[in-house]
Amino acid sequence: MATEPQSLTPTARTTLRRKRERGTHERALIDAILDEGLVAHVGFAAGHGPVVLPMVYARIGDSVYLHGAAGNDLLRNLVGGAPVCLTVTLIDGIVLARSAFHHSMNYRSVVLFGSAERVTDAQEMHDASVALLEHLARGRSGDTRLPTAEELRSTLMARFPISEASAKVRTGGPIDDEEDMDLGHWAGVLPLRTVAGVPEDDTASRSPAPAYIEGHRLRGGTLAPTPDV
Amino acid sequence: MATEPQSLTPTARTTLRRKRERGTHERALIDAILDEGLVAHVGFAAGHGPVVLPMVYARIGDSVYLHGAAGNDLLRNLVGGAPVCLTVTLIDGIVLARSAFHHSMNYRSVVLFGSAERVTDAQEMHDASVALLEHLARGRSGDTRLPTAEELRSTLMARFPISEASAKVRTGGPIDDEEDMDLGHWAGVLPLRTVAGVPEDDTASRSPAPAYIEGHRLRGGTLAPTPDV
Repeated sequence: MATEPQSLTPTARTTLRRKRERGTHERALIDAILDEGLVAHVGFAAGHGPVVLPMVYARIGDSVYLHGAAGNDLLRNLVGGAPVCLTVTLIDGIVLARSAFHHSMNYRSVVLFGSAERVTDAQEMHDASVALLEHLARGRSGDTRLPTAEELRSTLMARFPISEASAKVRTGGPIDDEEDMDLGHWAGVLPLRTVAGVPEDDTASRSPAPAYIEGHRLRGGTLAPTPDV
Repeated sequence: MATEPQSLTPTARTTLRRKRERGTHERALIDAILDEGLVAHVGFAAGHGPVVLPMVYARIGDSVYLHGAAGNDLLRNLVGGAPVCLTVTLIDGIVLARSAFHHSMNYRSVVLFGSAERVTDAQEMHDASVALLEHLARGRSGDTRLPTAEELRSTLMARFPISEASAKVRTGGPIDDEEDMDLGHWAGVLPLRTVAGVPEDDTASRSPAPAYIEGHRLRGGTLAPTPDV
């Protein structure tokens, strides 16, 4: 997007203080992580304290869209204007060090702070619905019945800004202390990734999965990033 | 554990109101999801509002242990006695329906509510450290240098109770509306799972990964559950 800032302004709560990990406010990396993730963990206050819910989401430009059932009490808290934290984490590997202390994970995560607003504009509801479908499987919005006005009325769609945000990334092998390097323990990384298996046809359809679904599997399960719609 | 209740007492915030998913307070299912997950998303208030951080964890009986650097300001909030929400989500598949509205995810998730306490007892610190290693890779605690007293002093270890908790599970194919069943769109489930790749030997070790690490890979990457230690 031509109007996006390339790097967001750091704030105290988005500035990384820990070592051996890289913290950044680069928009390109933040967007890439958001586009690769499938589920966000969304935290908001719900009277008694924080609630963290896994939610499907999609990005369009500078916004992340979340959706749920309009009748859901918890989600109504989400769009009430209170502070929200939205976190997306991709796990890349288990880091096994010679010492327990230096065991770690390789990961990429994004933390967004802000507040969510309920979407009411019909065009924006439509665009967000398409983005959510494309985020699940690129190409899907052209191969399903799009929502009716009634279905959209029973959907709570929330828009969350990408404005105060940071990404954290850990890559590479373990960093052991010098005096542990000669211990006999194996050290290294066990890489992890999410892969898609063979599509399971719904009993009533019994037809081969279309190419864009099979494509997930053939690419080794890398989920398609959301296009800018 | 002989003393564990088989099912936890439901509360308003752990009782599922949505359809097409199964909500439960069964301890066996809650424990199984916690033991299979690798990272929890932990939400707590940090002055300005909620923060949701991905954290490695491990379960021992009725407690979940979390750890981080003792000097981390955010984590000190976690053990300050305020309400905390800890969520673990396993993604099992993308559910593709004939209508956009009925697209969904197959997943298993656990949400725990409570407050965390900092662990100070030396034996409990040791046991939690072992559990965290075993959670990353079963067998690892016998093949690494365990933490020194100094390393434990620089670690913030938090204990979180499994007392107010619920699990949510969605399984199976899409549930389309009757009038959409004859639309030509493919419908079904694209199964997803986390798999482990070939262990990446640390440059300084150059030895084959031990059997318990290779085992992750040969079992198709299913991560080993935490044993009760």
